[in-house]
Amino acid sequence: MRKFSMVIFSLILAFAFSTAAFAEPLKVTVPGELTLAQAQKVLTAAVAKAEAIKVPVNIAVVDSGGNLKAFYRMDDAFLGSIDVSIKKAVTARYFNMSTRALGEASQVGKSLYSIEVTNGGLVLFPGGVLLVDKNNVVVGAVGVSGGTVDEDENVANAAAAVLK
Amino acid sequence: MRKFSMVIFSLILAFAFSTAAFAEPLKVTVPGELTLAQAQKVLTAAVAKAEAIKVPVNIAVVDSGGNLKAFYRMDDAFLGSIDVSIKKAVTARYFNMSTRALGEASQVGKSLYSIEVTNGGLVLFPGGVLLVDKNNVVVGAVGVSGGTVDEDENVANAAAAVLK
Amino acid sequence: MRKFSMVIFSLILAFAFSTAAFAEPLKVTVPGELTLAQAQKVLTAAVAKAEAIKVPVNIAVVDSGGNLKAFYRMDDAFLGSIDVSIKKAVTARYFNMSTRALGEASQVGKSLYSIEVTNGGLVLFPGGVLLVDKNNVVVGAVGVSGGTVDEDENVANAAAAVLK
Amino acid sequence: MRKFSMVIFSLILAFAFSTAAFAEPLKVTVPGELTLAQAQKVLTAAVAKAEAIKVPVNIAVVDSGGNLKAFYRMDDAFLGSIDVSIKKAVTARYFNMSTRALGEASQVGKSLYSIEVTNGGLVLFPGGVLLVDKNNVVVGAVGVSGGTVDEDENVANAAAAVLK
Repeated sequence: MRKFSMVIFSLILAFAFSTAAFAEPLKVTVPGELTLAQAQKVLTAAVAKAEAIKVPVNIAVVDSGGNLKAFYRMDDAFLGSIDVSIKKAVTARYFNMSTRALGEASQVGKSLYSIEVTNGGLVLFPGGVLLVDKNNVVVGAVGVSGGTVDEDENVANAAAAVLK
Repeated sequence: MRKFSMVIFSLILAFAFSTAAFAEPLKVTVPGELTLAQAQKVLTAAVAKAEAIKVPVNIAVVDSGGNLKAFYRMDDAFLGSIDVSIKKAVTARYFNMSTRALGEASQVGKSLYSIEVTNGGLVLFPGGVLLVDKNNVVVGAVGVSGGTVDEDENVANAAAAVLK
Repeated sequence: MRKFSMVIFSLILAFAFSTAAFAEPLKVTVPGELTLAQAQKVLTAAVAKAEAIKVPVNIAVVDSGGNLKAFYRMDDAFLGSIDVSIKKAVTARYFNMSTRALGEASQVGKSLYSIEVTNGGLVLFPGGVLLVDKNNVVVGAVGVSGGTVDEDENVANAAAAVLK
Repeated sequence: MRKFSMVIFSLILAFAFSTAAFAEPLKVTVPGELTLAQAQKVLTAAVAKAEAIKVPVNIAVVDSGGNLKAFYRMDDAFLGSIDVSIKKAVTARYFNMSTRALGEASQVGKSLYSIEVTNGGLVLFPGGVLLVDKNNVVVGAVGVSGGTVDEDENVANAAAAVLK
């Protein structure tokens, strides 16, 4: 009888431990992933640059998974640039290069011609650049749309610089 | 008894106030937004111009948010132009310029090449023009499709002129 | 030589005739199809009824092919009802019955349960009714959305009545 | 010689006038529309409330046209809630009521059953609420997703309160 109690007791103990192990909360984000605080810094830098050059833009920040992390549409910025800015950020991260670089490889007669119809639509003109942190890890990308493609890229570069 | 009456009275008063606060109707449209009366004027002018040049067209009017406000398909106009006319109007408003102007910047080798795959599909040939009211506010756009692109654009311009 | 000339002459004549036959313009619309004039009558009647019962609505008219013919969004009507009104009209025409009737056959446990996910999305509540002309031909449907489903259906019925 | 100068002068004047007329900038936003400054206030209030109740959420802000204005995904918030939060905001604005209110009218056997398949997919559970400004104008909506539906709605209500 006593032995039996011990077995029961052990089982309860084991259960308690396993439960404890189970109850330990999952870490649902890879350590080092882009944070909201970082994304906000990127947005703030983008807005500052855009205001300096007097061009209202849409700014989209995606994380290393290419998923939207934060977004601002400045007043008077194009409605059509909401989607363009998000697609610029996604495009840059999906191929780990700026949309300018991808675009150059995707023109008529070039090797990646037609890639823009994949992935639900890619954007092949400048304004999407990678977000690289201090450890040289690509943690996402920023896409800017609203001005000329050069203006957009300038704003994106100024925004990305804050993470270095 | 008197005190009880006062309590009841206070409750009725409180209820009346809270009801009043609640009953105050929301204004669900931002003042200055495109009205149906304006959209009807635009459609009527478009039909008149299209009849004058003997080209049956589809005519779509969107408001400042790019949402459909009014639409006519003239008899014998292409079925395939329903969607084209709506996309022309949306495209013009999304980028605050005519679809002709956007199209010129989006040809192969030009800066916005590939933009047509964004926003669920854009139209980059003439026939979409902005609707600008007397206060110089962009209140929407009109898209016309059914004739040659020049005919479509002529109809759209004639239609947009009625709001100035 | 003379005979040869006659042959040539005959060929030219035949060609001229066949060309004339070819040049005869195609009739691109089935005679009896819903006209824009009819659709405008339907819209006008719908607006009058909606104003009478003080409910701003979206009104969509489709022809016998289920393709959009005309549309009005009254001021202050729901943005989300643009699509609902169009889908109501399409649904009614696709199954040649009111959306109320189709909806009753599509509830949980009924024979058409789940039909709403077909055809790009159907609407199964009242507000879509057939447009039937004086010859008892179904020439399309009208969909109304913005009030309660009963209000919507009342407006749609008042609108459809003008074609009888 | 003198006459010639006058002609030149007139031409310059005419050009200056026409340029001035052309250069008059369009107002591309209807006055009273939601601003980025307002949207940022809404996001900040949402994050503060979400941190207070220890629930990481996605927060989406749309303007009066239902177009995305600003967005934050808090660290550890569900990836699947990006789309849900945006759809909650759009749904609330499209029908000018909370997603809770719309959801109650859309259950099996209720009048709006099946409405969720319209508009590219609506969300019918709590967490989307209207943004109403001090003039009682609906200027957009906020959608929150990440916690229980009650938590989401609490965050959304706290966020919307900052514009009153």
